[in-house]
Amino acid sequence: MQEAASLTIVSCDCHAGAPPADYREYLDAGYRASYDAARRDPDRLERRAAEVIGTGPMSPDTDEEHAALTSRWTADRRLEVLDADGIAGEVLFPQPAGRAAPPFYNFFGHPLDPEDPLAAAAGCRAYNRWLADFCEGSPAPERHAGLALIGIVDDVAAAVAEVEWAKRAGLRGVILRSQPLSGYGWHDPRYEPLWSVCESLEMPIHTHGGEGLELGDLPGSRSIFFTEVVWFAHRLFWHLLWSGVLERHPNLRLVFTEQFADWIPPLLHRLDMQYEGTVSSLTLTEGLRMKPSDYWARQCHVGASFMSREECEVRLRIGVPTILWGSDFPHDEGTWPDTQAALHTTFDGVPPAELRAMLGENAIRVYGFDADLLAKHAERVGPPITDFA
Amino acid sequence: MQEAASLTIVSCDCHAGAPPADYREYLDAGYRASYDAARRDPDRLERRAAEVIGTGPMSPDTDEEHAALTSRWTADRRLEVLDADGIAGEVLFPQPAGRAAPPFYNFFGHPLDPEDPLAAAAGCRAYNRWLADFCEGSPAPERHAGLALIGIVDDVAAAVAEVEWAKRAGLRGVILRSQPLSGYGWHDPRYEPLWSVCESLEMPIHTHGGEGLELGDLPGSRSIFFTEVVWFAHRLFWHLLWSGVLERHPNLRLVFTEQFADWIPPLLHRLDMQYEGTVSSLTLTEGLRMKPSDYWARQCHVGASFMSREECEVRLRIGVPTILWGSDFPHDEGTWPDTQAALHTTFDGVPPAELRAMLGENAIRVYGFDADLLAKHAERVGPPITDFA
Repeated sequence: MQEAASLTIVSCDCHAGAPPADYREYLDAGYRASYDAARRDPDRLERRAAEVIGTGPMSPDTDEEHAALTSRWTADRRLEVLDADGIAGEVLFPQPAGRAAPPFYNFFGHPLDPEDPLAAAAGCRAYNRWLADFCEGSPAPERHAGLALIGIVDDVAAAVAEVEWAKRAGLRGVILRSQPLSGYGWHDPRYEPLWSVCESLEMPIHTHGGEGLELGDLPGSRSIFFTEVVWFAHRLFWHLLWSGVLERHPNLRLVFTEQFADWIPPLLHRLDMQYEGTVSSLTLTEGLRMKPSDYWARQCHVGASFMSREECEVRLRIGVPTILWGSDFPHDEGTWPDTQAALHTTFDGVPPAELRAMLGENAIRVYGFDADLLAKHAERVGPPITDFA
Repeated sequence: MQEAASLTIVSCDCHAGAPPADYREYLDAGYRASYDAARRDPDRLERRAAEVIGTGPMSPDTDEEHAALTSRWTADRRLEVLDADGIAGEVLFPQPAGRAAPPFYNFFGHPLDPEDPLAAAAGCRAYNRWLADFCEGSPAPERHAGLALIGIVDDVAAAVAEVEWAKRAGLRGVILRSQPLSGYGWHDPRYEPLWSVCESLEMPIHTHGGEGLELGDLPGSRSIFFTEVVWFAHRLFWHLLWSGVLERHPNLRLVFTEQFADWIPPLLHRLDMQYEGTVSSLTLTEGLRMKPSDYWARQCHVGASFMSREECEVRLRIGVPTILWGSDFPHDEGTWPDTQAALHTTFDGVPPAELRAMLGENAIRVYGFDADLLAKHAERVGPPITDFA
């Protein structure tokens, strides 16, 4: 088979969401009245977001900002943006805050009303149902892989049922909080049914930077939050490693998205040392039959949003088959609308086979994209692979 | 001046402590009765340690273990061990657990009775007073630099007074918990007097791996704790960075001990990106006039216990002047009693000037050792520098 001249690019970190009014019909009937009340105070979502993380309201000032805003929920507008960015396919996370965020839920981790986690669970379900319709109703459904938001897991059976629903609805994976809202963490055996269903239905589990410790409203708090938030998103890996979940569920897949990639080589080195008993007088292998780095290679991926040149240079130590590039569209910190320039900065000179893997083929395998259909879009919009020589 | 033929080695991570009976006279009179009661239940300390971190009781089975145990509190025995290990000088942390640990306090972070932090504060004071006597009473006081344990800081004025006492008593720095027992963290402006006194008295501030989040008694909890505990010890850096403490106190020095060194290059890279506004739509420089990596270079050190070859290879990115090697004597995970072999594994082929800096000169500068006096011991016990060519 001849290799395609164009690079098939999949962004494994894009964000979508509905205008608030559109979520209403997807909400369980019992939550519509309180949602209407929240919408009558349209700044409430923004205010809560600002409290949590210090962002201001989002209102489009420029044409580019308007494109970013409307493409969160308008599929044909969205596809134009992907085309212009040279991207064939995308993986969809929710908008973490602001007007298109899931009802009653912000930042992957903060129920708008911490006293009512059931409202947040209903908001996640509404988002998932809207997202399934968005992907299915797109003029090019083969270009979208939507992920179900499983934000609230106190009722483990309900979380399992939502994963099953998501699979039937065509969604391609699930997003968990960095840590459960209550209890000690993901190593708790009570979540075993969740790992089983995600393994058996081949739904990879994602964390995405978003939650940290309470830091108060003190000088530096917001910057400290930004520094720390990625670490909390990493924790799922070693919680499921040391509690034996990855050993018991060899087909379970984890994806760590928008939390950098440079932490992986030193972490794997240190976990292997811990397993081999060289960092502490206390050696606990916890029943694992392989080194921690072997579980990473077998079952984990990094959603390497706006991957840096430095991260690319250690790709062999991270594992090229584990790397999934992402643009983070439509967020300011991502590569859009200058994705092609960003790709050259990071990837120029990388051997073509590695480039194809990190930018597209790994994602096609993890998310079950149709490689032939994506290749047709790439012929039209993807950059020539020779450009990266 | 001719360079010495022998390498002057300072271990910046050693541990000492008294037999429990010896702490009694150093305790405030009001705490002696409850300390006697605790000592009548000699397993209580061990049990609490086992609960927290899973270690069993420590009792010497071999000659080597007996040397390790008695050298925690017997200076002449300790000096013999240092000599045999090729080490000229040492920096002293407390025993984190077991029989020689400070009264009412274990693991740098867990008051034995969480309901009585004042007892833990008294225990720290007793340890500090014992340590000052231990260093002063040694046959070679020029070889020891003791660090004061400031475990409880709810009463900031009392913590400041203890730093002032420690300086007068000849101790060379202070150890803080990874995070204060209460409140949001070290970025809280209430600790400003503590930073001022440590800066003006030239007392470098240390964290040492020891505290993490509560993980419950679940499968994997202990291993997760070990994986996470080092990260919590790193936090002091970015808490004091983003809250402006390092900017306001340019002569304050921080030392991050026994928590690895490989996390530093990726962290500095990411903090610089955060400062320059390339990782988030929210750019907050927090009033800093330099990049985060500049504050690291100016004010921080890593206590690189049992430093690995991989860490040595990135020494230029960490900053050679910031690296302080340590043996972690008398702990199993450290290099003792095979320090010379461990040094060759890590450092063979490193240019002599860098070797001298990381193994001794940096420590002499940070802790105020007398270089000439240490050089005399090194002539007797230190390895020839040509051995590392």
